[in-house]
Amino acid sequence: MFENKDKGEIGNLGEFGLIKHLQSKISTSNERILKGIGDDASVIELDKGLVLVQSTDMLVENTHFDLSYAPIQHVGYKSVVANVSDILAMNLKPNYLHVSLSFSSKFTLDAVNELYDGILKACKKYEVEIVGGDTSTISKGMVISLGISGIGEKSKVVYRAGANENDLLCVSGDLGGAYMGLQVLEREKRIWSENPSVQPDFSGKDYILQRQLRPEARIDILDVFKSLDVMPTAMIDISDGLSSEILHLSEASQVGFTIYEEKIPIDQVTYQQAIDFNIGPATSALNGGEDYELLFTIAQKDFDKIKNHMDISIIGHATSKNESCQMISKGGSSFALKAQGFNHLN
Amino acid sequence: MFENKDKGEIGNLGEFGLIKHLQSKISTSNERILKGIGDDASVIELDKGLVLVQSTDMLVENTHFDLSYAPIQHVGYKSVVANVSDILAMNLKPNYLHVSLSFSSKFTLDAVNELYDGILKACKKYEVEIVGGDTSTISKGMVISLGISGIGEKSKVVYRAGANENDLLCVSGDLGGAYMGLQVLEREKRIWSENPSVQPDFSGKDYILQRQLRPEARIDILDVFKSLDVMPTAMIDISDGLSSEILHLSEASQVGFTIYEEKIPIDQVTYQQAIDFNIGPATSALNGGEDYELLFTIAQKDFDKIKNHMDISIIGHATSKNESCQMISKGGSSFALKAQGFNHLN
Repeated sequence: MFENKDKGEIGNLGEFGLIKHLQSKISTSNERILKGIGDDASVIELDKGLVLVQSTDMLVENTHFDLSYAPIQHVGYKSVVANVSDILAMNLKPNYLHVSLSFSSKFTLDAVNELYDGILKACKKYEVEIVGGDTSTISKGMVISLGISGIGEKSKVVYRAGANENDLLCVSGDLGGAYMGLQVLEREKRIWSENPSVQPDFSGKDYILQRQLRPEARIDILDVFKSLDVMPTAMIDISDGLSSEILHLSEASQVGFTIYEEKIPIDQVTYQQAIDFNIGPATSALNGGEDYELLFTIAQKDFDKIKNHMDISIIGHATSKNESCQMISKGGSSFALKAQGFNHLN
Repeated sequence: MFENKDKGEIGNLGEFGLIKHLQSKISTSNERILKGIGDDASVIELDKGLVLVQSTDMLVENTHFDLSYAPIQHVGYKSVVANVSDILAMNLKPNYLHVSLSFSSKFTLDAVNELYDGILKACKKYEVEIVGGDTSTISKGMVISLGISGIGEKSKVVYRAGANENDLLCVSGDLGGAYMGLQVLEREKRIWSENPSVQPDFSGKDYILQRQLRPEARIDILDVFKSLDVMPTAMIDISDGLSSEILHLSEASQVGFTIYEEKIPIDQVTYQQAIDFNIGPATSALNGGEDYELLFTIAQKDFDKIKNHMDISIIGHATSKNESCQMISKGGSSFALKAQGFNHLN
């Protein structure tokens, strides 16, 4: 009855398309809901100028992580980081976590313990408390579902919508590392599967492997905003690649964006690895994902406050609503930005 | 590396054992956390005498539901009901829902739409708003993960802990129906798989099938408490069978319980079906599950207020901490209550 006659039906819609389709069925009427679906987290108004922000993430083995190379403790750590990053993207810090786990009988108690230890380590690091959870079995693989929430000041919340024409587009840290780390791990997995006696070659690649296997969320950037007295006009975290995230900001804020290839921050190890793989280094940033950096816009007047910060790059600016999102290459050509980020529905 | 050498390791712990084991790793220090793991929902203190209650449920195909007989729209509806019921068990009403879905390529867009329509119908019925979500693919089957939350008065919250010696133990509605509905569906599935030309025989079984496939949560009972001016001393919802839930109340409240077989409310259709299957009718209530009724204790002084309510049964009372949980049979014998409810880890 539910067999898929047209295999491409959902695949064609894609993850964003399907979410949009389902979203179209929902109408919210509750006036406490400041933001429902369509941002990194939902925002519910509380009293005394406070809001509740909430987000969920479901991570599926072999869709979102591969235990043939990812240490299970890191999988636990990273799943919390991804969830924490969604709350940070609203310019608030998370407080509470619910953890639901489902795993097949191939997993030992030791494995579940290690996974949980990774989850707990990330909770400690980001000062998040586990307040609920659930466990069950599944016929195959493992699923981790996390629900995170935070309570903070309404006046501090930054949405995807809010960028104005001429605002500067900024990003924390550097991009593309997690994607290049993934490429290295996938290559070594292929080599190993063809010849198990070959030892993997990870020398000099610590940085990109760490970016892929055990990333951190940019909780420090919220403190930077505070100390520099900068309030972003719009923000999103980079989980699906720079291109996708810029398009999300563009759609929510109803502005275009122009970015400059030469301004995209890329670490030397990422850069070299991309060259070795015959991938344009900018491509790893634009189309990769899982960097968990923060992408945000600021008003022009705040340029002086942020221009010298070592860990923030200004990569472009917002243009008028009628202009599309584009990248100006190092050679001066213009390319349209496309949502080629991770599509977990393909 | 994570292969399970001792297949029984996690199975022996069981779902409750594993949750307890993982719980032992967690320590909460945040003073806003009035209740973390160990109740139907977590409780976070807000300002102005309000609290935030949150709960999550992850439902896995073929562990928690079987699409060979459960209409997918009902699966959506029931998953929300189960989640809503957790909040009601805290004596508060839910407000907000996050929905994460993961499904394999066998599912059509029509199937996903039907599932979502069931979710939306339940949201409408229970006045819950969808504020967030996530979709992804999984290699096999379907996983539904829901995160529900509600904001309500701190003074109204009822925990599992709180029952005192001599309190009366009460239950809403009737029990065992969902379990007997499941037995009928499983029998017809077996018959059909042996001989697909045989039409399933569901005549006269509407009630128990509805209890299994499209149950409701007892949001009306919260209004009963209000109108009768009764504040339960402890409460839990019946998702895992009466026996398990009584043991949870016993452990949390540090009291024993004595219940009487003749007092357990069982519908006539459930009763007859149990007899037909050679199952003791009380067993379907004690060891079945998914009834989503509310099990609660009240002080003796409230007996007169509740004794004539048509939809609430007083089935026993709390005893001293030193006494165990037992059922007095119709014949007058005493049986120890055991946690034989649904164990999704076996």
